[in-house]
Amino acid sequence: MRDPILLPLDLPELAVDLSGGDVRRTVHPSGLRVLTERMPASRSVSIGFWVGVGSRDEQAERSDAPGSLGSTHFLEHLLFKGTPTRDAYEIATGFDRIGAEHNALTAKEYTCYYAKVRDADFEQAVTSLADMVTNSVLDTNEFETERGVILEELAMAADDLADVANERFFEEVFGDHPLGRPIGGNAETILAANRDDVDRHYHHRYDPSTLVITAAGAVDHDRLVALALAALDASHEERWRTNVSRVPVRRATAEVVENAVPVCSSQRVVKVDRPSEQINLLLGTNGLPTGDPRRFAFGIMNSVLGGGMSSRLFQEIREKRGLAYTAYSFGASYTDAGLFGIYAGSAPEKTAAVLEVSKNELARMAADGITEEEFERSLGQIAGSSALALEDSDTRMGRLARAELGTGELYDLDASLERFEAVTAEEITSVASMLAESPLTVVAVGDVAKAVIPEQ
Amino acid sequence: MRDPILLPLDLPELAVDLSGGDVRRTVHPSGLRVLTERMPASRSVSIGFWVGVGSRDEQAERSDAPGSLGSTHFLEHLLFKGTPTRDAYEIATGFDRIGAEHNALTAKEYTCYYAKVRDADFEQAVTSLADMVTNSVLDTNEFETERGVILEELAMAADDLADVANERFFEEVFGDHPLGRPIGGNAETILAANRDDVDRHYHHRYDPSTLVITAAGAVDHDRLVALALAALDASHEERWRTNVSRVPVRRATAEVVENAVPVCSSQRVVKVDRPSEQINLLLGTNGLPTGDPRRFAFGIMNSVLGGGMSSRLFQEIREKRGLAYTAYSFGASYTDAGLFGIYAGSAPEKTAAVLEVSKNELARMAADGITEEEFERSLGQIAGSSALALEDSDTRMGRLARAELGTGELYDLDASLERFEAVTAEEITSVASMLAESPLTVVAVGDVAKAVIPEQ
Repeated sequence: MRDPILLPLDLPELAVDLSGGDVRRTVHPSGLRVLTERMPASRSVSIGFWVGVGSRDEQAERSDAPGSLGSTHFLEHLLFKGTPTRDAYEIATGFDRIGAEHNALTAKEYTCYYAKVRDADFEQAVTSLADMVTNSVLDTNEFETERGVILEELAMAADDLADVANERFFEEVFGDHPLGRPIGGNAETILAANRDDVDRHYHHRYDPSTLVITAAGAVDHDRLVALALAALDASHEERWRTNVSRVPVRRATAEVVENAVPVCSSQRVVKVDRPSEQINLLLGTNGLPTGDPRRFAFGIMNSVLGGGMSSRLFQEIREKRGLAYTAYSFGASYTDAGLFGIYAGSAPEKTAAVLEVSKNELARMAADGITEEEFERSLGQIAGSSALALEDSDTRMGRLARAELGTGELYDLDASLERFEAVTAEEITSVASMLAESPLTVVAVGDVAKAVIPEQ
Repeated sequence: MRDPILLPLDLPELAVDLSGGDVRRTVHPSGLRVLTERMPASRSVSIGFWVGVGSRDEQAERSDAPGSLGSTHFLEHLLFKGTPTRDAYEIATGFDRIGAEHNALTAKEYTCYYAKVRDADFEQAVTSLADMVTNSVLDTNEFETERGVILEELAMAADDLADVANERFFEEVFGDHPLGRPIGGNAETILAANRDDVDRHYHHRYDPSTLVITAAGAVDHDRLVALALAALDASHEERWRTNVSRVPVRRATAEVVENAVPVCSSQRVVKVDRPSEQINLLLGTNGLPTGDPRRFAFGIMNSVLGGGMSSRLFQEIREKRGLAYTAYSFGASYTDAGLFGIYAGSAPEKTAAVLEVSKNELARMAADGITEEEFERSLGQIAGSSALALEDSDTRMGRLARAELGTGELYDLDASLERFEAVTAEEITSVASMLAESPLTVVAVGDVAKAVIPEQ
């Protein structure tokens, strides 16, 4: 069996060949990490500046972890608003002028600023991203304007009932733990946010030890390392200097997990009343953390249960009964916790049937596992869809960063497929049983008065 | 200036080199058209079966054009539900087993069934798609189940207020014309749909003269032509036989446009009251048809007005005033009509300001045009984003089909960029003036009682 590549934090450079690519990794003494994957046929390049800080790291009440709720996401917006040498308009025109696909995203455990550009525009994209990340001025007027933009973003999400159901589901499964909070905060915390608090969050969290730069496609590793180090040393902020030694931070190796994620201990049904045609139904429970060895068994199980048009949930809910247009199962994984869920949207009078079929299919999976034919199909689905996804430089760029920030294990496609092939029938029923036997959380958002949703 | 490749309907084969690709085209005497673009570095292939029939072709009351409203989209669903040799489950497992990205879409002027697969799975994907398109049985029980699925799809769209605004906007701009109707019909027409009517639509519209097969990536043109002809000849339905001569159909060359699209003759403000946090605002008017020579000027104008983060609307609405999270302008083009619009989502108390800024920016564009810097930036944006998009075999596959079904003109990237470069300042102000001087349609969906939306 092919082992994953381990990404130790103290090894300065690693060069490996992975399927169809060429991965290089530099851990600079400053703490900065740079990972690249060259794709020989590519004429473009995807570049990401990843900071190992997410919404779970906000703890307004603690002096060592400033940042009011939503401040990580607020900061992500503000990094587009200007540096001493580039105002917001220049940042926007710089990317638009070269037709870049560029954006940023805030997650629970990281924040990412990325661009995809033609190979000739590589240097410009790296320079702009580096300037944004290391030199943001967080201007007070821009802060106020952006508060309004973020309030609109939250209002947009509040009008999307599937979004509302999803956030509530995380809140219910993870309870009071920071992983349960909505990434963007809420209107109250955004109205209360102040510029200096977000600025402290920026200064406290953003430095070379938390920064991972990844690129895939038409990329020259050494050139990217040189550009990145030069940009950090040229920063207006002292904390970015690369002549200072720092220990790079990986959440998985953090000394203490101070605040353990609670496990759901009782069943619960939560109904959120909103005018709607459909009920957005989510049911599920605690799942697997990022590095859990059972994740390959879970991947097969989830694929058969609700991973495609031929999956059991899609077949039973949509194809045989016509109860929903969308129906699938999913997992979400974090360093020390995970979540498993089933989603379907249906008219209120069909919700009880959807819920029953979903529970039955999970119970059946736990009792009987999957067939040999389903196992083979699932392997084929994972192999085919992974191969297609890895043709895209975005996917490879993101995979490098998540491995570096997460478990420190980088699987190439073949090594990963070998792990899936080695999954046993017993491992599948075991992971399904764990899920089926956990207390179930049910969240229904919509015109719930019209729906019959049993409490048990 | 590089001319577009013309795609005449009576020339049996065409082989041309386009930027970075290799396009071949066969017009078979049966009417079947096959276009491919080989991308030498690609290990995957995107394949589309395109039928030149869309929702605008439904006219329930006419014997020569059967199909109740929504029946084109209903048919698209039913083609996944089984043939004499593959039931719905086998169709689904066939694609899932190879990890295909596959789906279908119904538009106003065409319907498309597509798959993206690894090169080794090319033949299986073609065979499945061909079987679905030529041999669907439209089983009565499956019809009833799928009615439920489609009603759920419509309910999902009804809960998405941006979707609701968009459909209403088309309805208002295009009036009673078939282009103004929602693609999927509505609950009433879907409840009234019957299997035999959809079956007549299928038999009347789907045959080799309306079928265009396109593929891009790791594709062998001759093999695709051979596979397609064999599949058509093996169909259970006589109408697919390739030994019968047919004239391929291109909407642009249809003899008569019987039902001219009405032009908006007066201003109107339509408010749709729905509980919400945001008002989904659309404003706009008639735009340019697909083949309009002014489309290159429109492309530049639209890019500067509302095409990116540096665009005027994004800057004025979001960056300077914080009024919205999303704000952009867009065009939609059909054979004989088009539409231009501006979209923004904002809290009700900001809607009046968004509307005013939008109108002002359109008027300013008509009065003053764009700057030299904006012109250059727009060219760079179009060049860069087009180059990135054309790395994807999906994009190339779709481009071939839209050229074949639409104007019959296929531009390679260089020829297209030359057209954009040749646009004059006068052409830009001219197209902006045409839009700014047309009676404006405004659609607002959301908690409209809280918003001030002037009638003029």
